[in-house]
Amino acid sequence: MADEVVVLDFWPSPFGMRLRIALAEKGIEYEYKDEDLWNKSPLLLQMNPVHKKIPVLIHKGKPVCESLIALQYIDEVWNEKAPLLPSDSYLTAQARFWADFVDKKIYEIGRKLWTTKGEEQDAAKKEFLDCIGVLERELGDKPFFGGDDLGFVDVTLIPYYSWFLVYEKFGNFSVGAEHPEFIAWVKRCMEKESVSKSLPEQEKVYDFAMLIRKKLGIE
Amino acid sequence: MADEVVVLDFWPSPFGMRLRIALAEKGIEYEYKDEDLWNKSPLLLQMNPVHKKIPVLIHKGKPVCESLIALQYIDEVWNEKAPLLPSDSYLTAQARFWADFVDKKIYEIGRKLWTTKGEEQDAAKKEFLDCIGVLERELGDKPFFGGDDLGFVDVTLIPYYSWFLVYEKFGNFSVGAEHPEFIAWVKRCMEKESVSKSLPEQEKVYDFAMLIRKKLGIE
Repeated sequence: MADEVVVLDFWPSPFGMRLRIALAEKGIEYEYKDEDLWNKSPLLLQMNPVHKKIPVLIHKGKPVCESLIALQYIDEVWNEKAPLLPSDSYLTAQARFWADFVDKKIYEIGRKLWTTKGEEQDAAKKEFLDCIGVLERELGDKPFFGGDDLGFVDVTLIPYYSWFLVYEKFGNFSVGAEHPEFIAWVKRCMEKESVSKSLPEQEKVYDFAMLIRKKLGIE
Repeated sequence: MADEVVVLDFWPSPFGMRLRIALAEKGIEYEYKDEDLWNKSPLLLQMNPVHKKIPVLIHKGKPVCESLIALQYIDEVWNEKAPLLPSDSYLTAQARFWADFVDKKIYEIGRKLWTTKGEEQDAAKKEFLDCIGVLERELGDKPFFGGDDLGFVDVTLIPYYSWFLVYEKFGNFSVGAEHPEFIAWVKRCMEKESVSKSLPEQEKVYDFAMLIRKKLGIE
């Protein structure tokens, strides 16, 4: 029911996109509330008083914060359709490991790509492509990180694709030129409606990044 | 069986202590291998090629890296005795949230307490006590974060107690003076053999911290 699930989100957030994809995969209707992060709503401050961050999944009035934790909650509560985590404990631990790897690396390195210059940016570019290489090797011959279908790591990682135009333009590189297998995986994900409908247009994210650079005083 | 489970660890590591406590709670025998972090073993590099960090839980020859992921794996595989995570999905999400909070805050702030000076150290001191206050409020009237018994958040957090002498001496403050309820929780945890036998003496950790300060050239 639409009134059972609410998502407090911000449209360019790769963390928020994870929840949108997972809920779409599960076929769960929800109310989407886009936050103004420069003027956070009383509801957001009430639901996530510790971090005051989006996304927040609100289920039956109770909040679940932090995107990977919300993903696992969604997977546990609506476990009959489109399971994200495998039933095997070891494979689950591996999926958690790679989702954690994505969490520890991609956002921060990506941010450096479009907010720094010179040596710092060059280092970020190298580190970003190294990470993509590590992930590409982990993917191997599988269609998805989750195996034959979209899984926990796929849902965690694919949202960053909406930021690739930003990363590539400011970093002056092409992920596809260096890691074609990774881009083949991106395309497989984007063929799924749950993904393509949850990610904003790259051009729109680029315009947003330009706006933030202006706010931060970066020329 | 002792040969089934191996833990690659380093004795002053609060992350490693988590695994030691969980395995003790579950009554699992294991082989403990203390790593020299300045000269990592080929086994560690083979088992955790991505992060090259301890702790690593090796079960039947296969590695599980990252302490919170290993804790969850231990809890899932040996789930009959001393469950760490509740069976309810919402309570599990909450436990994961607070364990994640501990992970994101305590280690880094704690490190600043004994490796920085002046304003940076003062800020760390304030932030540390603020975090302890937040955790104390979350604990509330419960004996443990997990309720009536040791749970996921307790096992995640209590290892830092072995570093409290370091934090308090260098930061020049007393956690007990500001947060007596938190220290009452510490004492309840330390009454458990699984905890007290898994944590090194605070004085030994203090000597270790002094050694590291010397290596880092901090006077």
